[in-house]
Amino acid sequence: MTASPAIAAPSQPLDAAALAAHIAADPGLSAFFGADMANLSIREIGDGNLNFVFHVAGGGRALAIKQAMPYSRMSGGARALTAERLTYEKLALEEFARHAPAHVPAIHHFDAERALLGQEFLSPHVIMRKGMMDGVVYPHFAEHMAAYLSACLFATSDFALTASDKRRKVARFAGNVELCEITERLVFTEPFTLSDNNRWTSPELDAEAAAIRGDEVLKQAVSALKLAFLTRSDALLHADLHTGSIMLTETDTRVIDPEFAVFGPMGFDIGMLIGNLFLNCFAQLAYETEPGGRAAYRAFVLGAVEEIWTGFAARFAALWREKRTGDAYPMRLFPEAAALEAVLARYLQDVLADALGFAGVEMIRRTLGRAHTPDYDAITDRQRRCLSEKLALSHGVMLLRAPRGGMSMTEATDAARRLIGAAPGR
Amino acid sequence: MTASPAIAAPSQPLDAAALAAHIAADPGLSAFFGADMANLSIREIGDGNLNFVFHVAGGGRALAIKQAMPYSRMSGGARALTAERLTYEKLALEEFARHAPAHVPAIHHFDAERALLGQEFLSPHVIMRKGMMDGVVYPHFAEHMAAYLSACLFATSDFALTASDKRRKVARFAGNVELCEITERLVFTEPFTLSDNNRWTSPELDAEAAAIRGDEVLKQAVSALKLAFLTRSDALLHADLHTGSIMLTETDTRVIDPEFAVFGPMGFDIGMLIGNLFLNCFAQLAYETEPGGRAAYRAFVLGAVEEIWTGFAARFAALWREKRTGDAYPMRLFPEAAALEAVLARYLQDVLADALGFAGVEMIRRTLGRAHTPDYDAITDRQRRCLSEKLALSHGVMLLRAPRGGMSMTEATDAARRLIGAAPGR
Repeated sequence: MTASPAIAAPSQPLDAAALAAHIAADPGLSAFFGADMANLSIREIGDGNLNFVFHVAGGGRALAIKQAMPYSRMSGGARALTAERLTYEKLALEEFARHAPAHVPAIHHFDAERALLGQEFLSPHVIMRKGMMDGVVYPHFAEHMAAYLSACLFATSDFALTASDKRRKVARFAGNVELCEITERLVFTEPFTLSDNNRWTSPELDAEAAAIRGDEVLKQAVSALKLAFLTRSDALLHADLHTGSIMLTETDTRVIDPEFAVFGPMGFDIGMLIGNLFLNCFAQLAYETEPGGRAAYRAFVLGAVEEIWTGFAARFAALWREKRTGDAYPMRLFPEAAALEAVLARYLQDVLADALGFAGVEMIRRTLGRAHTPDYDAITDRQRRCLSEKLALSHGVMLLRAPRGGMSMTEATDAARRLIGAAPGR
Repeated sequence: MTASPAIAAPSQPLDAAALAAHIAADPGLSAFFGADMANLSIREIGDGNLNFVFHVAGGGRALAIKQAMPYSRMSGGARALTAERLTYEKLALEEFARHAPAHVPAIHHFDAERALLGQEFLSPHVIMRKGMMDGVVYPHFAEHMAAYLSACLFATSDFALTASDKRRKVARFAGNVELCEITERLVFTEPFTLSDNNRWTSPELDAEAAAIRGDEVLKQAVSALKLAFLTRSDALLHADLHTGSIMLTETDTRVIDPEFAVFGPMGFDIGMLIGNLFLNCFAQLAYETEPGGRAAYRAFVLGAVEEIWTGFAARFAALWREKRTGDAYPMRLFPEAAALEAVLARYLQDVLADALGFAGVEMIRRTLGRAHTPDYDAITDRQRRCLSEKLALSHGVMLLRAPRGGMSMTEATDAARRLIGAAPGR
């Protein structure tokens, strides 16, 4: 059997028959599912912005097979994107699996020519964002994310790697220009000026949007963070680490979809993540069917924000003290980790300042820019959605306008608690 | 005529006959020199650490043809290096020629397979370092270097380039790992610890070397600068911009040999350059045949340091105000340059702080590390050499230990003047 033309030329999404033919023709895939090819179950399950995803099950096993088309799915084919992003996703999954294997899906198939990536089908995992909207508490989520972030960011930094190994890794990801461009434009630029791509709840949020567009201090802070994203290769980032890129159960947490991966400032991944947690926290207010009905869940979310940071900082510090094998602050110059405690503390302070800033950017751009989140899209009561959105904007603006380095993570969560406590109708 | 095997396999340096055969076989080169191939004059003139360089003249024209061997020339073949560095040199020369054409040699020939790069033979130019040792004043040098630095660093930064164009350029240079490793080790690491590669005037400088190896504050400052070199892709650097990489006359200044080119912090190029000027300034003391005989020359050198910085800052600011076409602090968010004057001032302050630090690193590593400079090697009077070396070390240490951002360029040059004024025997 030969691969069908429909697969060989990935100009249109696979249909089930073509994918079945591809699986049957691939020795690794057919072995994975066993002999009974006729009974494979194949269905398209993708709900992301860029790719198609197929659930394939057979012989008691299942894979999620992702297909990258040469355009953005969200654009309906209008926005050209090379399928190379799938190669970066695979490279990143492999890199992250070396450092945090418990928190990354396993890869079972990769076909660059057909732009197919077959991964472990995670079950009974759900997308974190959906679980949060449903009010599901994940008691190990924060601890797992602190472990994932500290392991991946430290191991791909100059604190762990020789300069040459680091530069070679940076070079491998440096070509992921197309997806970076999406971040640079949709995250850091368009939401802070007039753009046809922007949308917000209008006219209710018109005044807030205009104030943000006219806030020079805020725009400078956003642009300083953008410059850091453009110039700093501190560590390999997932670079799209929102709650839609996490699948989990109460006991297992996996980070998926690192196709935006690029070297950048560590605070970017942490900031994106906590920005999405803050966003969800404010949205919870609108989910309440009785006053205070989601108060305990909000406490869980803000607690998770704090725990992600303290867990990250503690684990990162332990790695710094025990596994500093890289060319930055090298063992040759600093054999005693104790001599570097002040350097470490300042470094973490800088990561925190960056993370709070990136979180602020994320909250604003998800409210005023092109890509909103289901946390808010699902709120049908317009007045309640506006209230939550205004809180998210206020909090984001506060994070960005605060003097750099002047805020702890608990001050950031306390500010969220105060905003919610003072909200109309509370 | 076919290329000789000796050329096709660049495992040993070309001889004149083989190079003549290559030139005759290359239509571009033979046209350059005209018909009279028999009368080509070819001689090896390289005095650098890495490559062989041939002066080739004929038909009233001349080229400098550089050949990169798959090892470092300085090591006598012991240290393997791919000849790829010549490709980076060519890419960098082309990039810099777009922004500062008056200050870069023209390329007339490139043969990647044979690792040959033919450039304009600069005449009557001399290597800046030699001219300075001879006490030659170059009245336009500082102005030219300010023009070169501001044009090249601005144009390859995110202030001029779109994020995607910048990332593509970064990706093109990201593979220049081998030469970066030399910088990372010989500049930032070995001179600050014990290494077989280090050498210094011993026992006279033993105490100074030991004090530097034990100075935790200084080593932390050096390592912070190294981390910046490892992680920040602010602009395309020459990355080896000492006075041996500049050829000039009284009216014309050219920057040669950018084979170390890589994206990095702007202050690195500026700091290497002024570090070498400071080094020469302290060496001048030992060149005097009568007390004060080189005082005027030292004043020229320190004046050049100041003028390079003020010239760079003024020209960079003008480019920022008038040609800010990049994705950092984009025109879309900041149509009025006036709104960014404070951002610009802070940015230049950071570049200055970096430059002063990198200058301090350069002065120390050229005195205690592997690669010394002819400015000092030429001083035959051991006592006088030691005195100059101690001044250079003192000044370097002072630059590195000063609170970051607390020093202006004139404070740095004044400190050099005070050190010289207080030197024994003055």
